[in-house]
Amino acid sequence: MGDIDAAGARQSSRPIEVRRFRGGALGLEDDPDLVATEEPFEIRVGYSRRDGSRAEEPVSVTMRTPGHDEDLAVGFLFTEGIIKSGSDVQSVTARGQRAADGLTNVVRVELAPGVSVDFKRLERNFYMTSSCGVCGKASIDAVAVQGQYDVGAVPFRMSGAALGRLPAALKTQQAVFEQTGGLHASGLFDAEGTILALREDVGRHNALDKLIGNELLRGEVPLHRNGVIVSGRASFELMQKSKMAGVPLVAAVGAPSSLAVELAREFGITLVGFLKPDRFNVYSRPDRVV
Amino acid sequence: MGDIDAAGARQSSRPIEVRRFRGGALGLEDDPDLVATEEPFEIRVGYSRRDGSRAEEPVSVTMRTPGHDEDLAVGFLFTEGIIKSGSDVQSVTARGQRAADGLTNVVRVELAPGVSVDFKRLERNFYMTSSCGVCGKASIDAVAVQGQYDVGAVPFRMSGAALGRLPAALKTQQAVFEQTGGLHASGLFDAEGTILALREDVGRHNALDKLIGNELLRGEVPLHRNGVIVSGRASFELMQKSKMAGVPLVAAVGAPSSLAVELAREFGITLVGFLKPDRFNVYSRPDRVV
Repeated sequence: MGDIDAAGARQSSRPIEVRRFRGGALGLEDDPDLVATEEPFEIRVGYSRRDGSRAEEPVSVTMRTPGHDEDLAVGFLFTEGIIKSGSDVQSVTARGQRAADGLTNVVRVELAPGVSVDFKRLERNFYMTSSCGVCGKASIDAVAVQGQYDVGAVPFRMSGAALGRLPAALKTQQAVFEQTGGLHASGLFDAEGTILALREDVGRHNALDKLIGNELLRGEVPLHRNGVIVSGRASFELMQKSKMAGVPLVAAVGAPSSLAVELAREFGITLVGFLKPDRFNVYSRPDRVV
Repeated sequence: MGDIDAAGARQSSRPIEVRRFRGGALGLEDDPDLVATEEPFEIRVGYSRRDGSRAEEPVSVTMRTPGHDEDLAVGFLFTEGIIKSGSDVQSVTARGQRAADGLTNVVRVELAPGVSVDFKRLERNFYMTSSCGVCGKASIDAVAVQGQYDVGAVPFRMSGAALGRLPAALKTQQAVFEQTGGLHASGLFDAEGTILALREDVGRHNALDKLIGNELLRGEVPLHRNGVIVSGRASFELMQKSKMAGVPLVAAVGAPSSLAVELAREFGITLVGFLKPDRFNVYSRPDRVV
């Protein structure tokens, strides 16, 4: 549980003045409230050129909730296939105009010497990923073979009762940080249904990248002995990121999309949706629920 | 209400087999269910070169729920500032491998003769939008001056009681289509709280683009006499799209993000959050709630 700490919790929400409508009338004055922080974030990669000199390339700008930015940067690079392991990373440096507040909007990930990135391939890869299905089944197959881990072969098993305990466990731990109602959560759990780590963000894909990035830096990837729970709906990109990290079971409190189900079946991931204490749906690989 | 028709409703969800966990045990057989359709979608623009010859350029690939694809394409081009009015559009053509099923994943928007697009500016624009705030306040100002309409000056007024009726009205109309729990909704309403149009999508920004695109093609933009309600949370991009369409009031059933509040204040949009029948919060321009 050591990982569910308050680092970044101060930055994840922001005080704000709000006019409340209650009892049929608008208040005459503003009241203080908290809103989830949404801020832009740039990921840059430092790497070696062929001649050994160092170079830097921006790879992504995204809106995110500050906190665990290093995890987010490393997780994004890993789930997008830009780095292959935690040892590809030499250092992670946050910087930006607001560093004085503890808020930084640019993170530079310095790759280890000898680790090279094919930025042309990155572009191609990104397009293929984004356009998966535009060109039909062939692209889904291309996505499906991405990643190093054969998740379908992972012998993870979990009881329905343990699954049913997850939403309450997630909510309890989320309550420590979440006072805004504006954050998505991703939680990592073991086969007994214990939440091992929790990350939050205004973007659901960011919450998962933060979670995976943290595990990668701790040397815990592939996550073959864990499942991931998401507080909202399960979309295409959550399944893809879970596949990259070797996660055999993904549980969503909300609904899955059709493409999430298709990818789960293609990848051999167990996909659980509408997860409640006593009832849920299994959309793929029900053999892992015992 | 003529606009809340069933066009596209057939495509917005898809039958699927699911294993249900009920009463402490997993079912032995699959049951039929419905999931929200998520499919990739490419928007292409046909335009005139300087020498008068025609050309085509892909501008976006996004995941979306099929249905009202023409509205989505036109709405996206408008809220991203690529076209300025409905008369910039000569025709919209859907095409793709699956046209035989009524499903198409590519839409081509043919611009009227003489309408030119600066694709270089488009790229720059996109970067500025995405990275708003990376470079600090200057970028937020740049976003704020985007668009043709001075929303802050729009004299829209609405009673708190009429606002309070919106969530139930949205839910009633959404129930016609939504059987999957997986779709975000955007609704257009008037000052009396009547829902005039509704669009749904797995992506919240797509639902709003569909709504705005439809109004643009009907010649109803700027939407100075309307508000927009979203079924979930209010993020940065929803405020930006609303500003582009001249919408003076945005109401969210869920929470706003910090950047949504900042942009609403900058734009002069009334932002309502946590909207319930008898209570809600007003984050900006409370003078429009009477």
